[in-house]
Amino acid sequence: MAKYAIGVDYGTLSGRALIVNVETGEELSSAVFDYPHGVMDSALPSGKKLGVDWALQDPQDYLDVLYHTIPQVLKESGAAPADVVGIGLDFTACTLLPAKKDGTPLCFLPEYKDEPHAYVKLWKHHAAQDQANRLNRIAEERGEPWLKNYGGKISSEWAIPKIWQVLEEAPEIYAAADTFVEAADWVVWQLCGKESRSACCAGYKEIWNKKTGYPSDDFFRALDPRMEHLTQEKLGQVISPTGTAAGGLTEEMAEKTGLLPGTAVATAIIDAHVFVPAVGIAEAGKMLAIMGTSTCHMLLGTEEKQVKGMCGVVEDGILPGFFGYEAGQSCVGDHFQWFVENCLPAAYAEEAKARGINVHKLLREKAEKLRPGESGLLALDWWNGNRSCLVDVDLTGMMLGLTLQTKPEEIYRALIEATAYGTRTIIETFREYGVPVTEFYAAGGIAKKDPMTMQIYADILNLPIRIAGSDQGGALGSAIFGAVAAGKKNGGYDDVFEAAAKLGKVLELTYAPKPENAAVYDKLFAEYKILHDYFGRGENDVMKRLKSIKKSYEA
Amino acid sequence: MAKYAIGVDYGTLSGRALIVNVETGEELSSAVFDYPHGVMDSALPSGKKLGVDWALQDPQDYLDVLYHTIPQVLKESGAAPADVVGIGLDFTACTLLPAKKDGTPLCFLPEYKDEPHAYVKLWKHHAAQDQANRLNRIAEERGEPWLKNYGGKISSEWAIPKIWQVLEEAPEIYAAADTFVEAADWVVWQLCGKESRSACCAGYKEIWNKKTGYPSDDFFRALDPRMEHLTQEKLGQVISPTGTAAGGLTEEMAEKTGLLPGTAVATAIIDAHVFVPAVGIAEAGKMLAIMGTSTCHMLLGTEEKQVKGMCGVVEDGILPGFFGYEAGQSCVGDHFQWFVENCLPAAYAEEAKARGINVHKLLREKAEKLRPGESGLLALDWWNGNRSCLVDVDLTGMMLGLTLQTKPEEIYRALIEATAYGTRTIIETFREYGVPVTEFYAAGGIAKKDPMTMQIYADILNLPIRIAGSDQGGALGSAIFGAVAAGKKNGGYDDVFEAAAKLGKVLELTYAPKPENAAVYDKLFAEYKILHDYFGRGENDVMKRLKSIKKSYEA
Repeated sequence: MAKYAIGVDYGTLSGRALIVNVETGEELSSAVFDYPHGVMDSALPSGKKLGVDWALQDPQDYLDVLYHTIPQVLKESGAAPADVVGIGLDFTACTLLPAKKDGTPLCFLPEYKDEPHAYVKLWKHHAAQDQANRLNRIAEERGEPWLKNYGGKISSEWAIPKIWQVLEEAPEIYAAADTFVEAADWVVWQLCGKESRSACCAGYKEIWNKKTGYPSDDFFRALDPRMEHLTQEKLGQVISPTGTAAGGLTEEMAEKTGLLPGTAVATAIIDAHVFVPAVGIAEAGKMLAIMGTSTCHMLLGTEEKQVKGMCGVVEDGILPGFFGYEAGQSCVGDHFQWFVENCLPAAYAEEAKARGINVHKLLREKAEKLRPGESGLLALDWWNGNRSCLVDVDLTGMMLGLTLQTKPEEIYRALIEATAYGTRTIIETFREYGVPVTEFYAAGGIAKKDPMTMQIYADILNLPIRIAGSDQGGALGSAIFGAVAAGKKNGGYDDVFEAAAKLGKVLELTYAPKPENAAVYDKLFAEYKILHDYFGRGENDVMKRLKSIKKSYEA
Repeated sequence: MAKYAIGVDYGTLSGRALIVNVETGEELSSAVFDYPHGVMDSALPSGKKLGVDWALQDPQDYLDVLYHTIPQVLKESGAAPADVVGIGLDFTACTLLPAKKDGTPLCFLPEYKDEPHAYVKLWKHHAAQDQANRLNRIAEERGEPWLKNYGGKISSEWAIPKIWQVLEEAPEIYAAADTFVEAADWVVWQLCGKESRSACCAGYKEIWNKKTGYPSDDFFRALDPRMEHLTQEKLGQVISPTGTAAGGLTEEMAEKTGLLPGTAVATAIIDAHVFVPAVGIAEAGKMLAIMGTSTCHMLLGTEEKQVKGMCGVVEDGILPGFFGYEAGQSCVGDHFQWFVENCLPAAYAEEAKARGINVHKLLREKAEKLRPGESGLLALDWWNGNRSCLVDVDLTGMMLGLTLQTKPEEIYRALIEATAYGTRTIIETFREYGVPVTEFYAAGGIAKKDPMTMQIYADILNLPIRIAGSDQGGALGSAIFGAVAAGKKNGGYDDVFEAAAKLGKVLELTYAPKPENAAVYDKLFAEYKILHDYFGRGENDVMKRLKSIKKSYEA
């Protein structure tokens, strides 16, 4: 009898369940449920206004995803509940909520219904920037050793700035919270009826380290004396590696989802990180890029290195037994979208319309005819700052080599090339700090839909590129963890590496670098690197000075 | 009885005559005649093909301008021929033709009808670049002292490279030519029946200097032994300052134009330089910018200084008794046109159409709302290389400060600002080398039609800007020289300064710098200057390296 695993992938606006045959990897059925409350960024349902840069969610939506999608995939696939051996889930992060000891979110309690700080702070809640800035200054002054594990900077999107904002703006909520928990861990808690914390979330978002734990009480006291004992009092104490089981499904959850009680539930993982097993990566040196509006880079290493400008390194954070490295580019597809919205001439728009094709497709058609360096253009891909390896939101975009003959498709291609140079910078930085990168995998919309861009990446990185095979890589990765949580004796796997090798998917198609292109791109990348360092490493801080003049008008 | 002067302004595609009251400056009538042969850049009328970058004209067209336009303005104005005291003319340069001793153009002779090198080489004939490159290398190696009078580089548009091209490609034409003469001087020659050469053309285009004459025979021998005696054998020997009379109208010309024989004819002048008296400038320190697709800068000084990167300094070359300085920006309005043709989004094109306005007007409307530095953008205005002060055609454009929020009007304004920073660089360079610039005048299409740009220039230059008062500044300037050629005893002027003060015109309107804007622009210009030197003065030659990769595909 075939066995199945279910993966649930929680995104920004919806959750998706996928049911997978754990032997063949066949994806039988999937279902999506949109969060009824969506992203609350201007007001609570009560009408209570939110501040600028806020972004909240209601955790009830996460439960409703389970109640709607799991029964649906069971029904559509025809899988018997007894044959579903495990369930895994991935989530956006840091997406954090305050809860009582029993897991009840504060926002479920009537007395806090109208209190914004009682709700889930979504990953893109950016209202804790002030706290993040102060945290970074204090950590740097104190020479906190863990800071280098995060490229030298803690993001305002992460847990401690968000928690500190609660304390400063709503101390009564801070006091009422018995714990602050990642939504990922909270859903697992609801499924199993017992608290569980993932090394992935804790490591990348809560400044937790397997060897050294959380930052010291001293550090937290330096932030605010009221936070001195935050880690013992309100953060997770038992942190589990990815690839472990968190527990079994409760009776109540079994009833609401249609699964059997006791079905294995995996430790949660972040939505980007879960792609690694989904493309079959089970060893060090294979970098995975999830390419969309921005790009996340995942890489396994066998040693802990402090790589300048990466987003984080977490032991057991991606796959157990490895150091999981994360890096990122804050603007990739967004460049191309900006270009189309702000720079596309009417004649091109008309041509695309007349031919009934997307303008991006038209631009790619034209750009594809260009040879490397033929446009004479070179850009720095910093339209939305630089995440890795400069970790500097105040950097801005640059384009050079413009002439009266420059055509739109040349600019478009230069933007694509610039993002590939940005990726190459990340790869070379990992190598420089002793973390090998030997192969390159790509997932996400661009990887799947844009062969020209992938060929340019192959030529610029001078690495063959493999493409994710599943269109639902997040949910597939979660299902793999679900199968591992079940264990072999229950029809799953004992080992995530075996499961990834079996169930992870890449396309047959590989983009191989063309040597003649790679040779030209080597020269162009050398030019990129000089400008990258000149503008990005303090030799000429013109971008920051211009931004500060610009900001003087906002005050 | 009122007296009149006629000015004839020879452009690239047509010639225009203007008749002016020499007492009141009233512009009574003007007439335009399009050159029947236009610009011949692909073939001769016979069908004989021309090479890449060629641009020829037929000198008969220049005569036909006189025969058509002068009778017309006489008729329309009602001026009696006896009351026309003088005629002056200005011309594009270096626009050069080979002629026989009697002034007959070689292309008028049947045996040379089908020989491209026998025709006029228009200023924008760019096929002598190879000769220009070799000339510059040899001049530099020999340490030729005059090179610095031209910013260190002789343009391929100028006379010696063009003559050298004739010698190398058609030695029989070189041999058959008794002289090479600027079209400007050739038309004066036809009018007066005797050869005349202008210090303006000879100084700016033929490497002639009032004190030291032409470059030495030694130098020309180094170019090619056959050119050793070029200057004595085939260039003008008697060179007259601007503001002098070249002679009187011949019987034949009088008959064909309807003027009286003996009417005073002024020494010719180049079409840009003639604008100086037309805006009433008669003293040192007042810079005039003629702003169109590119910009020419004219400045009078009382001493000869070798200013780095200017186009030329010529004694008596603009007004007699002064050192006339010329500088230039090879791309000004062309930037804005490039932007509109290549970067204007469909939504903007539609908005302009719906409102029935020009897209430039729409962009200016939006750009005008921005405050200095508010966009965070900074550009280098090198879309077509840099003429002054870097004299480098291989430099290219750059834009910096781009973000996902950057709007088209912000880019448009950044391009305008960049051209103003380019002008400020030229002004500061003149000052640095001891040539004062105390006031700023602007002529040309942009000066007249674009108040926003002129205000930005005033703010960035931190100088009040006066605008040319005549729409036909070239022809007006030529008429002024015509009146001076006549002399006071014949109803004209003895002195070009008096004539310029009386007949030159500026608008009432002056653009005054706004101190709060000027203060921000001082900061932005400091940033521009750093990047200008970094990319332009050899610290990072990335633009040249990119261009050389680009060019490798053209080979």
